Amino acid sequence: MIDGDVVVALDVGGTGMKCALIRPDGVVVHAERHPTDAGRGADAVVGTILAVADGLAGKARADGLTPTALGIVVPGVVDEARGVAVWSANVGFRDVPLRDLASARLGLPTALGHDVRAGGLAEARIGAGRDAEHVLFVAIGTGIAAAHVVAGSAATGAHGAAGELGHILVRPAGPICGCGRPGCLETIASASAVARRYAELTADPESTDRSDATPDGRSADLPDTGRTMVTAAEVAARAAAGEELATRVWREAVEALADGLATGQALFDVETIVLGGGLAQAGAGLFDPLRAALRDRLTFHREPRLVAAALGDEAGCLGAALLALDQLEKR
Amino acid sequence: MIDGDVVVALDVGGTGMKCALIRPDGVVVHAERHPTDAGRGADAVVGTILAVADGLAGKARADGLTPTALGIVVPGVVDEARGVAVWSANVGFRDVPLRDLASARLGLPTALGHDVRAGGLAEARIGAGRDAEHVLFVAIGTGIAAAHVVAGSAATGAHGAAGELGHILVRPAGPICGCGRPGCLETIASASAVARRYAELTADPESTDRSDATPDGRSADLPDTGRTMVTAAEVAARAAAGEELATRVWREAVEALADGLATGQALFDVETIVLGGGLAQAGAGLFDPLRAALRDRLTFHREPRLVAAALGDEAGCLGAALLALDQLEKR
Repeated sequence: MIDGDVVVALDVGGTGMKCALIRPDGVVVHAERHPTDAGRGADAVVGTILAVADGLAGKARADGLTPTALGIVVPGVVDEARGVAVWSANVGFRDVPLRDLASARLGLPTALGHDVRAGGLAEARIGAGRDAEHVLFVAIGTGIAAAHVVAGSAATGAHGAAGELGHILVRPAGPICGCGRPGCLETIASASAVARRYAELTADPESTDRSDATPDGRSADLPDTGRTMVTAAEVAARAAAGEELATRVWREAVEALADGLATGQALFDVETIVLGGGLAQAGAGLFDPLRAALRDRLTFHREPRLVAAALGDEAGCLGAALLALDQLEKR
Repeated sequence: MIDGDVVVALDVGGTGMKCALIRPDGVVVHAERHPTDAGRGADAVVGTILAVADGLAGKARADGLTPTALGIVVPGVVDEARGVAVWSANVGFRDVPLRDLASARLGLPTALGHDVRAGGLAEARIGAGRDAEHVLFVAIGTGIAAAHVVAGSAATGAHGAAGELGHILVRPAGPICGCGRPGCLETIASASAVARRYAELTADPESTDRSDATPDGRSADLPDTGRTMVTAAEVAARAAAGEELATRVWREAVEALADGLATGQALFDVETIVLGGGLAQAGAGLFDPLRAALRDRLTFHREPRLVAAALGDEAGCLGAALLALDQLEKR
C-alpha cells in the first residue's frame, strides 16, 4: 500500500448504484450515488457502469490519488471466476462479461462480485462478524439471500448461485414463491412478504393461517382497496404495540425465519449470523423473538451469535472494494 | 513420496472399525476390520483404536514399508482443528483428544477427522465426484449426513458440526426426530425411517399420510406383532414391483429427499451430488424418481449431477488416509 492509493468500488442495484473511492485501510474518501435506470436495458446500464467507474478513476487522479483496482458487484447470478454477470432479474443482465469490459475501459485490475456475497464479505471482515472465522450473512429485504463466509472468503458455488437462503423450503403447504415453488422462506419472512401478508389479513382477517394452509393455498390477490400497503417495519411496530393481526404476521415471519436459520446452522455451523437488509432494522422487535425461536430449534447444534449488520447499505460497496484489493493481492 | 511409504488409516464406526495401510497413490496394501464394541465405554474404545493403529504401523514395518502418518475418522461432532472427538452418540466419545493421544502413542503425524466428511472428501477427490470442484456428498443410512467439499477440502464448520443435512426441516407437521424437533429430513428419508414407516403402515394402512400430518403427529409406537421389520431396500424393491403401501412410503421418502437436496443446492450450488450409504444402493429405483423430483424443485438453480457413491463402505477409510497425507503436506 502506497499513500494515496485507492480502489474504485461500485455496488449496482436494481434502482441505484452506490459508488466510492476507498483506501486500502477501508476509509471511504469519496462517495457518490447514481440511478441505475434499469428500464433502459442491459447495454445502457453497462454503459453507465463503465462511465461512472471511469469518472471515479479520473476524479481520484484529479485529487492526486492513484486508482489501483476496480471492484464491481451486481445482483443475480454472478460467475466471479469468469467475471460474468450471468443473470439478473432486476438489472436485466444476461451473460455480460462485465469484468473484462471494465478492465479494458479503465486499464485497471478488476473484480466482479455478487452484491450479497460482497456485503457478507464486508460484514464478516470489517463489520458485525469481524471476530468470527465462520459467518453467515443474511440480507432480508424484498427477498432473502445469504452469504457464507469462512476465513474472509465468501462461498460462490459452482455456478455463482450459492447462498439462496430465500428459496429453501420451510412451509410445504405455504404460498407460491416468485420462483414457482411453494413455501420458500422468502414467501413468509421477507420484508415484502410481511407487508403483503398483513395487507391480506387486514382485508380479510379470516384468511387461513399459513402454517396450516392447503398445498394449493396461493396468496390471494389483494382486493383493490385503494389503501397504501403498510410496510414490514410498521407491521413490526404494530406487533410490538400488541396489535393482533400484526402480531400474528410477525410471529409467522419470525418462526419461518428461525426455521431457515436453523437449517443454515445445521449445514454451515457458523459462529455468527449477521442479519442485514431492511427487516433487520426492526431491532429488538426482531432479534429478541428470533433468538428465542432459533434457540428452540437448535438441539445438538451450537447456537450461533445472532447480530445486526454494522455497515448498513454501504456493505456491498465496501465488499466491492475488498474484492478489488483481493484482486491486487493475487497478482 | 518414497517407494514403500504408507499411511495408517482407521474409520471408527459404532459397530466396527475399518482399518488399512494405504499408499500415497491410494492403493490399499493391507486392510483389516475390528469390532468397536462401544458398550465397553469410550476409554476402552480409545485403547482399541490406539492398539490397532500401533499394530498396523508395526505390520507395515514388518513388511518393509514405512508408515509416515496416521488418519483416524470417527462419527459425531469432531473438531478437526484441535484434533478432538467432541461428541458421539454411538461410540460414546466426549471431548477425547484422540489426535494427540494417537500421535503420542505412534510417534507419527496424525489427523483426526469426521467419518462422513472424510467419506465425502474421498468421493470428491478420487470417487464419484472426482471430475467436479464443488461436491455435496450425502450419506443415507440410519441417519442422513452430508459433506460439502470444495476444491478437495470438506467444510467442517466452526465447531466441527457442519453438514447435518439429516436435521434440516422439510415437514413442519412431520414426525418428531431423535434430535427432538419435528420434521427433520431423516425422519422421512433415512433408511430406518423408510423401514419404520412401512412397518407402521403395514400394521395400520389407515395411518395418516405424513405430508398432511398434524403438528403433534408423532410416529406411533409400533404394535408388537412379532414380525421382523422389512428393510428400506426391500421397501424399494416392493415399490418397484408396484406394491401400494411400499410405493407410498418410497414416494414420501423420495419427495422429502428431493426437498432436502433442493435446499442443499440452493445454499451450496454444487456441480455434483454424490449419494452414498445403504439407501443409495437402491439404484435406479431411487435415482430415477429422485432425479425427476429434484428437477421439479429446481427453478433458477442449476441442476447438479446426481450420482451414486463409487467407493462403497471404504470411503471413510480412504478419506482418513487422505487426511493423513494432507497432514504430511502441511508440514
